[in-house]
Amino acid sequence: MVDGERLWRRLSELAEIGKRKSGGVTRLSFTDEERSAKDLVASFMEEAGLSVREDAAGNLFGRREGSDPHAPAVLVGSHVDSVYDGGNFDGPLGVLAGIEVVQAMEEGDVQTGFPVEVVAFTDEEGARFSFGMTGSRALTGHLSPGDLEHQDGDGISIAEAMRDYGLDPARVEDARRQQNSLAAYLELHIEQGRVLEAEDLPAGIVTGIAGPVWLRFTIRGESGHAGATPMNRRHDALAAAAEIVGVVEEEASSTPSAVGTVGQIEVKPGGINIIPGRVDFSADLRDIDVAVRDGVEERIRERAEEICVRRGVELGVEELQRLDPAPCSEEVRGVISDACREVGIRPHSLSSGAGHDGMHLASLCPMGMIFIRSRDGVSHNPKEWSSREDCEAGCNVLYWSVLGLAGRT
Amino acid sequence: MVDGERLWRRLSELAEIGKRKSGGVTRLSFTDEERSAKDLVASFMEEAGLSVREDAAGNLFGRREGSDPHAPAVLVGSHVDSVYDGGNFDGPLGVLAGIEVVQAMEEGDVQTGFPVEVVAFTDEEGARFSFGMTGSRALTGHLSPGDLEHQDGDGISIAEAMRDYGLDPARVEDARRQQNSLAAYLELHIEQGRVLEAEDLPAGIVTGIAGPVWLRFTIRGESGHAGATPMNRRHDALAAAAEIVGVVEEEASSTPSAVGTVGQIEVKPGGINIIPGRVDFSADLRDIDVAVRDGVEERIRERAEEICVRRGVELGVEELQRLDPAPCSEEVRGVISDACREVGIRPHSLSSGAGHDGMHLASLCPMGMIFIRSRDGVSHNPKEWSSREDCEAGCNVLYWSVLGLAGRT
Repeated sequence: MVDGERLWRRLSELAEIGKRKSGGVTRLSFTDEERSAKDLVASFMEEAGLSVREDAAGNLFGRREGSDPHAPAVLVGSHVDSVYDGGNFDGPLGVLAGIEVVQAMEEGDVQTGFPVEVVAFTDEEGARFSFGMTGSRALTGHLSPGDLEHQDGDGISIAEAMRDYGLDPARVEDARRQQNSLAAYLELHIEQGRVLEAEDLPAGIVTGIAGPVWLRFTIRGESGHAGATPMNRRHDALAAAAEIVGVVEEEASSTPSAVGTVGQIEVKPGGINIIPGRVDFSADLRDIDVAVRDGVEERIRERAEEICVRRGVELGVEELQRLDPAPCSEEVRGVISDACREVGIRPHSLSSGAGHDGMHLASLCPMGMIFIRSRDGVSHNPKEWSSREDCEAGCNVLYWSVLGLAGRT
Repeated sequence: MVDGERLWRRLSELAEIGKRKSGGVTRLSFTDEERSAKDLVASFMEEAGLSVREDAAGNLFGRREGSDPHAPAVLVGSHVDSVYDGGNFDGPLGVLAGIEVVQAMEEGDVQTGFPVEVVAFTDEEGARFSFGMTGSRALTGHLSPGDLEHQDGDGISIAEAMRDYGLDPARVEDARRQQNSLAAYLELHIEQGRVLEAEDLPAGIVTGIAGPVWLRFTIRGESGHAGATPMNRRHDALAAAAEIVGVVEEEASSTPSAVGTVGQIEVKPGGINIIPGRVDFSADLRDIDVAVRDGVEERIRERAEEICVRRGVELGVEELQRLDPAPCSEEVRGVISDACREVGIRPHSLSSGAGHDGMHLASLCPMGMIFIRSRDGVSHNPKEWSSREDCEAGCNVLYWSVLGLAGRT
């Protein structure tokens, strides 16, 4: 149905934007790299015969009309921003596969009842501002003015970055879509895990998306001279932080499904011969079950407090974001299951540990996701890889799913 | 004997250079701040009637001739560079007290047999290049050309920083003083510990200086998606590093006297939702007994290796520097002891956990140090404090010690 060769070529072309020596890419949100990537995607949309527009949050849309111009649209897509030194499939696959699906329909003269829109969401990853899904939050009305005050490492806020990018942060509300304006949201994405690899399947049906809690721990101890302060007189902020990093790992590992990660840590004053007086570090906690995740969080907070009291250091914990797990729509899962059979793939269901824009879309319309196999389960890393064959198979599942949801006429 | 009021005024004046909101100072080596501090010190030297010169390493000297122009000099001093956000006494006290001693001799018309030189050594702290004692190494022939390749956080080497400062790194050998060219080296310094406070004494006699080993640990794990990588499939470089930070603390604490500090840590890629793939961190290990220190180091290295093997991550350990503990000269200790009695202070001996330029000077001439009481033992911190009375008392001990070593005529 779809042209796997063309999809692969476009993936390779997009991978050149923000390319690094490692072979990975860095395309942070509201940067020249994200702009160039969206411009390239817009050119692909035009090749596919779509009418292109960008909304007030920078979300890029390509629309193909259905036979009923007043029907809600089936929205298909993903994002083109990346984490620092990320891979070439996380995001771009879903956007380019969406374009490929409508281009194949155009070329095959296939008409749908509902319009189909392809979207490249703004700032899904959140790598720059430690926030993320800015575009899908805006589209679903989940973005508050205060959210735009999140700052990057250079102290630039999302609002400032939007202005530099040519967007008006005051108008971000305009990006909001109304309830029932969309018939469904569908996203093709790499699994970023090893389930499909273990099942020897190119693609699978997502049951739901785990919800992340992002916390920032701040520990204030007492800096001092590394040579002249006896061990028993120290209030070393990093020694306390290191113990809590161990607790995050231990508590997440003590459940069958939760994950816990400390990805950022900063020490002050930062001299080789100075006892750390202050440490800031992040924690990312997730589970598909909100009670499991919140239980892990509670035990980490309790034990961190005990550690800090025992060590005579001060603990602060700030919540950066809290998203509840999002189940996928039963109806959409059924459509994807049929599509898998159409393509000759045994339907297999699995959950998503990673967050996706679909978490927000689920509040607006039925939401579903299709995963394809990730080599070694690696992602957010230059080694992220899915084969050309699996990309094509996933794109075909997406084709039949879109057709199922938008209705062939 | 000495003018405590003038000493205190000069300390306050010097504290304005590189001053921070915290009340502390940042005067890194080979910066405009260190330059300004040395210029101010040179003006004080001139006020004291000293002839001023700077050597090829940037060490600043003020010389007062003795009655025998061919006799070796008694060298007195310390440094004016600081750590990041350091205190106002660590370094400046020793330099300004040295100037005060010779100015008091000048004003009191006291002639010595040997010349007396006051020195402000270059780059004692090593905060900028994670190295340190650059000036005293150069003076004692302990500086190799490779040492000047140490880089700061911006990738600027010591050699480059020297050139920017107006020094020629190729000529640094010229700073070397010959064996027996110095009669003794004496330094007045804050204790940076709590022994004198506990003994209720303004000053004490140093027995020797603990030797630091500085190590850089590099852990290479595997970065990946924080949501989609199950806990049991991770090779998290920061989780491994955190465990080793705990080992450094534990092994140092298991001895009565050793100290171990991790003051720097850096995580890559550094995204809030990315498992750390690489972590670099420092370790500073010290003891007055080289066997105790090396034993702590060996156990840390062994346990770090075990941790990394168990976690499937790669460990690298680089030695940044290794200085053996330096005992103070028996003769100089005797002279300081007599000086304490002269000033009315009960002679009390204690060791130095912090490193000092005297570690290098000890290879060239008899070396001794006088400590004064530090409030709460705090240093390398804006809260570092010694009272005006203790500074004056220490300066008087220094006066009588210099007189004892240089010989009144």
